[in-house]
Amino acid sequence: MFTKKHIISMRDFSRAEIDAILKKAEELESFAKGKKSDLLAGKILALLFYESSTRTRLSFETAMKRLGGETVNMISTETSSASKGETLADTIRVVSEYADAIVLRHSKEGSARMAAEISNIPVINAGDGAGHHPTQTLLDLYTIKRESHLENLDIALIGDLKYGRTVHSLAYALSLYGANISLVSPEQLKMPDEIKGDLRKRGIDVSETTKLEDVIPNADVLYMTRIQKERFPDPSEYQKVAGTYRISAELLKDARDDMIIMHPLPRVNEIDADVDATKHARYFQQAFYGVPVRMAVMSLVLGAR
Amino acid sequence: MFTKKHIISMRDFSRAEIDAILKKAEELESFAKGKKSDLLAGKILALLFYESSTRTRLSFETAMKRLGGETVNMISTETSSASKGETLADTIRVVSEYADAIVLRHSKEGSARMAAEISNIPVINAGDGAGHHPTQTLLDLYTIKRESHLENLDIALIGDLKYGRTVHSLAYALSLYGANISLVSPEQLKMPDEIKGDLRKRGIDVSETTKLEDVIPNADVLYMTRIQKERFPDPSEYQKVAGTYRISAELLKDARDDMIIMHPLPRVNEIDADVDATKHARYFQQAFYGVPVRMAVMSLVLGAR
Amino acid sequence: MFTKKHIISMRDFSRAEIDAILKKAEELESFAKGKKSDLLAGKILALLFYESSTRTRLSFETAMKRLGGETVNMISTETSSASKGETLADTIRVVSEYADAIVLRHSKEGSARMAAEISNIPVINAGDGAGHHPTQTLLDLYTIKRESHLENLDIALIGDLKYGRTVHSLAYALSLYGANISLVSPEQLKMPDEIKGDLRKRGIDVSETTKLEDVIPNADVLYMTRIQKERFPDPSEYQKVAGTYRISAELLKDARDDMIIMHPLPRVNEIDADVDATKHARYFQQAFYGVPVRMAVMSLVLGAR
Repeated sequence: MFTKKHIISMRDFSRAEIDAILKKAEELESFAKGKKSDLLAGKILALLFYESSTRTRLSFETAMKRLGGETVNMISTETSSASKGETLADTIRVVSEYADAIVLRHSKEGSARMAAEISNIPVINAGDGAGHHPTQTLLDLYTIKRESHLENLDIALIGDLKYGRTVHSLAYALSLYGANISLVSPEQLKMPDEIKGDLRKRGIDVSETTKLEDVIPNADVLYMTRIQKERFPDPSEYQKVAGTYRISAELLKDARDDMIIMHPLPRVNEIDADVDATKHARYFQQAFYGVPVRMAVMSLVLGAR
Repeated sequence: MFTKKHIISMRDFSRAEIDAILKKAEELESFAKGKKSDLLAGKILALLFYESSTRTRLSFETAMKRLGGETVNMISTETSSASKGETLADTIRVVSEYADAIVLRHSKEGSARMAAEISNIPVINAGDGAGHHPTQTLLDLYTIKRESHLENLDIALIGDLKYGRTVHSLAYALSLYGANISLVSPEQLKMPDEIKGDLRKRGIDVSETTKLEDVIPNADVLYMTRIQKERFPDPSEYQKVAGTYRISAELLKDARDDMIIMHPLPRVNEIDADVDATKHARYFQQAFYGVPVRMAVMSLVLGAR
Repeated sequence: MFTKKHIISMRDFSRAEIDAILKKAEELESFAKGKKSDLLAGKILALLFYESSTRTRLSFETAMKRLGGETVNMISTETSSASKGETLADTIRVVSEYADAIVLRHSKEGSARMAAEISNIPVINAGDGAGHHPTQTLLDLYTIKRESHLENLDIALIGDLKYGRTVHSLAYALSLYGANISLVSPEQLKMPDEIKGDLRKRGIDVSETTKLEDVIPNADVLYMTRIQKERFPDPSEYQKVAGTYRISAELLKDARDDMIIMHPLPRVNEIDADVDATKHARYFQQAFYGVPVRMAVMSLVLGAR
């Protein structure tokens, strides 16, 4: 069933392949909670982070070590100075002589695909700039599966839908399962027409609004994202918008009982602290689910089935 | 006996609890020397260092790995850039979804206590600014126990006694065992009256001098600390003082045979190199003792008794 | 046979000792490819890198972890700030209380020898400025042994032969096995007379040329090195030279079938990408061989024979 050597983009995966990963994650979840395993004992994962992403790195390291494997790290403070003059291609060639798999984080779109073409060993894309970050999408799907339901989901994607790689990738992935997708964003940060078109072609019901209040009563999932100040030429415009796309416990009084709130983190002020204690909050649980999902991905590409 | 979940401040510990930690350290000392153990196999310790402290970090990592456990690191060069915008609270919440315990080093006093309140998993304070660094005090006590004796100790605390968190914490801890404490410092860097008062209330004999020579003949322990240049508005004043609080082999001719010299390290010029070879030097041994003490702390909070 | 405690310089090794290391590397090579081992289980290697050298560090870490051992790291971004004021000697003394062996990378020549004199535990020199980097030379020898032959080798050393520590050390080591050495460099970067004299005294046939083409037909090994721009006061002079000492697939048409090309990496533009696919390229294989060689070194100094 699972035949991928590399994990580069969600677009490479069929629904059957995604289901296989999520099923494997479910099998491994008890090990993510601390049950001892040596499934990947003797295996070495190289983490090459050309830009800093501590959370993602720690999640991969935890996943590898909880399965009995080991990691070696090249972190961004080194890459900036150390590999001066060496091409990414040569670094990948050398590291693929050492390790059993590579996790690559790089600022340049397409770098993971290029690395996969060169590498002797599996490459897992942990974010390549404006490109893809498939294990983030997989952990989003896994969270939805475990805490809500994947098929015919009512989901609201909220915040920066123009530049947000996370929500684009999630929307495409959910289209494999059928979904009603509500898009909630300021005018300046609307989901690109091309993506909306693609989703509708796949039979997905897509609606748009600028008002967060509109989507709260019917959603199974509120998926929050950060709105970055840098996107706005005028700071006062940012202030107005940032204040609008902000969830408080008070705002959730009309929500369904089983509605869940997700966020890829870090949050800045999109979700008030008083939401953390509500029955709806799932964003820290979502961070946890990154561990079993990355365990699944690594056990599958490393052939430990 | 040992019921603490978190290790935040020495003030939280009774003498019985301290004794339990030191006893556990003694049991584990052979593993610190390299005897193989898998007491903490399958456990992951997250080291979150918001400021650099390589020695402390290596000591914790060594302790964890010698007991068969694993570590994941977030080092200060990352924290400065990476977690821009994320609160310490959210970082703690996320990391407590990955690891089994957290070691936190942070510049801000009170941060470890705050982290403990939020975290699902044990938090060990590895220094919070002007606040506490309990495993340093525990390793000081352990060194005294192993190389001298804890009860009714004659100890001289030397150097910067005004700002030195290490000596304040050690003095309080020793007061649980009875002690004669001699304070040796320049006028500008005397132990605060409040602490002296507290110690005396606990029945401790506290005396003060500005002359190092006064305390050498009678001490069981000379506890040296660094005097930092930054404490003196006038550099020439610093030079005069720094030269005064400096131990040489020559100066030790009047010391008792079993007197030991301790220092939390790094030293700058408080202890001449010619002291290293004397029978009195224990500061590198003291660094070693950090390993069994941290093993003990981690095995106790992780429930591997 | 193998009695060295520390690995500081190739000059310290007899041919019999080198042969013992290479033989051990051959025994361990299958573990470098991923076969599980616990030869060094329970051992901790401290990597102290005062300057960045990611490839060397990853190679040592991989070697240690593939043999079941563990590592603790002090990386250059920390050393610059953290150990402010502490001498290298004191850092070595402390770390030798924690770990079972130290790998030291330092910019200052002689620092590894000094560390070895102080340390209680084995010290492995991973480069001390203009000084030595013995595991690089050992992996070069191992590559030649596995991919060509060590005795009476026809080798061309190409590029910067004046400052290049790697080629100096390799030339001396090969002199133990008999060799015909061709030196190929621009006038400004010729091998120092002293080294040529030493080699000839050892019965080595040494010839010199400035033309790369001269040596290609007869060589068993072309050993390429980087020519650094900084060596030339006049940038246009560098451009001229850099273009000359550059291998392309086209240039190799006169080479012997079994000729191999080596490079310590990173390469800049000394070897065209079209050479990578030829039967001659061995520089990535050479990087791989660093792992079994470092396994051998560590297993020998840590006494796991």
